Amino acid sequence: MGKVFIQYYSKTGNTRQMADLVAQGATSVEGIDVRMKIVEESTIDDIYWADGIALGTPCHLASVPWEVKKFWDEMVSEGWGKIDGKIGCAFSSSGGLGGGAEITCIELLTIMMNYGFMVFGITDYVAPLRTLHYGAALPGEPRTQAEKDICIRLGQRLAEWVSYYVDGVEENHPSKVPYDRFK
Amino acid sequence: MGKVFIQYYSKTGNTRQMADLVAQGATSVEGIDVRMKIVEESTIDDIYWADGIALGTPCHLASVPWEVKKFWDEMVSEGWGKIDGKIGCAFSSSGGLGGGAEITCIELLTIMMNYGFMVFGITDYVAPLRTLHYGAALPGEPRTQAEKDICIRLGQRLAEWVSYYVDGVEENHPSKVPYDRFK
Amino acid sequence: MGKVFIQYYSKTGNTRQMADLVAQGATSVEGIDVRMKIVEESTIDDIYWADGIALGTPCHLASVPWEVKKFWDEMVSEGWGKIDGKIGCAFSSSGGLGGGAEITCIELLTIMMNYGFMVFGITDYVAPLRTLHYGAALPGEPRTQAEKDICIRLGQRLAEWVSYYVDGVEENHPSKVPYDRFK
Amino acid sequence: MGKVFIQYYSKTGNTRQMADLVAQGATSVEGIDVRMKIVEESTIDDIYWADGIALGTPCHLASVPWEVKKFWDEMVSEGWGKIDGKIGCAFSSSGGLGGGAEITCIELLTIMMNYGFMVFGITDYVAPLRTLHYGAALPGEPRTQAEKDICIRLGQRLAEWVSYYVDGVEENHPSKVPYDRFK
Repeated sequence: MGKVFIQYYSKTGNTRQMADLVAQGATSVEGIDVRMKIVEESTIDDIYWADGIALGTPCHLASVPWEVKKFWDEMVSEGWGKIDGKIGCAFSSSGGLGGGAEITCIELLTIMMNYGFMVFGITDYVAPLRTLHYGAALPGEPRTQAEKDICIRLGQRLAEWVSYYVDGVEENHPSKVPYDRFK
Repeated sequence: MGKVFIQYYSKTGNTRQMADLVAQGATSVEGIDVRMKIVEESTIDDIYWADGIALGTPCHLASVPWEVKKFWDEMVSEGWGKIDGKIGCAFSSSGGLGGGAEITCIELLTIMMNYGFMVFGITDYVAPLRTLHYGAALPGEPRTQAEKDICIRLGQRLAEWVSYYVDGVEENHPSKVPYDRFK
Repeated sequence: MGKVFIQYYSKTGNTRQMADLVAQGATSVEGIDVRMKIVEESTIDDIYWADGIALGTPCHLASVPWEVKKFWDEMVSEGWGKIDGKIGCAFSSSGGLGGGAEITCIELLTIMMNYGFMVFGITDYVAPLRTLHYGAALPGEPRTQAEKDICIRLGQRLAEWVSYYVDGVEENHPSKVPYDRFK
Repeated sequence: MGKVFIQYYSKTGNTRQMADLVAQGATSVEGIDVRMKIVEESTIDDIYWADGIALGTPCHLASVPWEVKKFWDEMVSEGWGKIDGKIGCAFSSSGGLGGGAEITCIELLTIMMNYGFMVFGITDYVAPLRTLHYGAALPGEPRTQAEKDICIRLGQRLAEWVSYYVDGVEENHPSKVPYDRFK
């Protein structure tokens, strides 16, 4: 049974709201075990446990808050080189449109690539002018249904890839899941 | 008299609209000469001419369209190493929020840094949840006034920096210009 | 039988030499079909064919040469949304150390992520002070054995991931392949 | 009199060695006041004081060590929006070639851009196959003369730009300084 771990950090609650929606999306895929924790309560065992990881943080200076970087920096001595090949994706909330949420997603993906993860973005549009090609990147909190769907789709896709690649469930390849990808 | 050049590329007209607004912002600063051209009609002489350059493109695969990259790639043999120290900034329109417009701005800034430019982003919020820390990055066309203001502020700030740093006009340092920077 | 496609571009021959070594590495993994083409002779059918893709270019302005971007830009209308989930990695040769080869690798990975690929870097050191965390990034051509090993390891790892994830060959998970990963 | 501040972080001493050389380069430009501090002993007053800032860190996961991010994150509440227009550049030492030092430089530049800085890279080659287009990015410590020259040139260029743009010393425009830029 594929396992998805959502690790997030949040001060204002915005990224927490995103994490909840990512978890909702992951849970919608049958046969996937979903776990979610804030970074302070998370340990390396959560990373070992997971097949797929969604990592979400606020955007501080277009980059990862130091509190989250500390977790991943300090995990190097024990975990680096032991978790290659896990599947990773990212989400981030910034202070505003154009404030760096996309760049933070790239930064989060880069950190995971350094650990040997396979990371991905999503081609689908969830609504006109709303997509998540490098992860879910939002200004502020998810307010509209489209913004919520961005987060949900991220969790769903991560779970689909885990289901397809780790559990070998052919029908969970995203190309076989019936939603309108490019509306 | 400081000179600002706006080079853009546009297929759908979205980035063209952004360029028009960037030009409007640059023109609002007294004592600045503003020139704007689509990349196909632009030559290296426009780059030599300018003190400050705003470079704008659509976001194609979170990156610069090949038509624009061709201009900058081919300019290397003649211009590289001769235009260091010019001031640069970026703008981009993507297919959607989360589609890569911020990342394209970083890419454009990176290209300009390779030419030795000094590049910048902007701290100001032009409205709640609307900013331009790495350039003006919009989904689609500028529709709301805030989205228009993002583009206008970019051109204005470029002109301010040129006025301050190249022409030595102290009162055009952005910290002395009376607008609400952090609403 | 897993399929690996190496697409490269080269003007001076440096990236071509890297591509040859990447192919050598991929071929070393049993049960993998390897194909290599220069971008001008490549078509979308090569992309459709492949399970894993190593994309390599020289570093032009810390970014993809326009000739390669043209291929991937123009492939959007036919291929985008149809090739999600393929496995991708990158290699690049720059004019010098500090010239942008790493940044070009990130750019290549970003383009592939836009197409929905799962992209990865490699934790292994192939020799002291020589690694490939974001792909094989070299100044000039591969000259020392360590620099050659960087390229070889990239192709090998891509083939290993394809073998493990696509063909389900458990013993090709990199953690089970006997080489010294962290010397 | 233009002021250059070099802020660095170092655990192994590699980045410290780079910082010393950057300081040496900055000091070589007449009329520039140079200050250097490790991040733990640095305060926001150093940032206020400086016209130009060289920021250097080891590469941890292709990114800024959390100890340094903490400094810049926590400076937001007091300093953000008050230091726009300063001139910034970056340097980084990674565990190996291909380990992320270039990407870390981009990350450092991105953080400084978020604060409104004007950031730059350097076109010059200091020796065949040795350059610093996005800052000084080295595997390990600076060992060869070329690697030392990369660091020295970075400090020198920062001081030249400060001298030219802040102090208005025309002859310190890099194009007028007699060194072989493109050997």
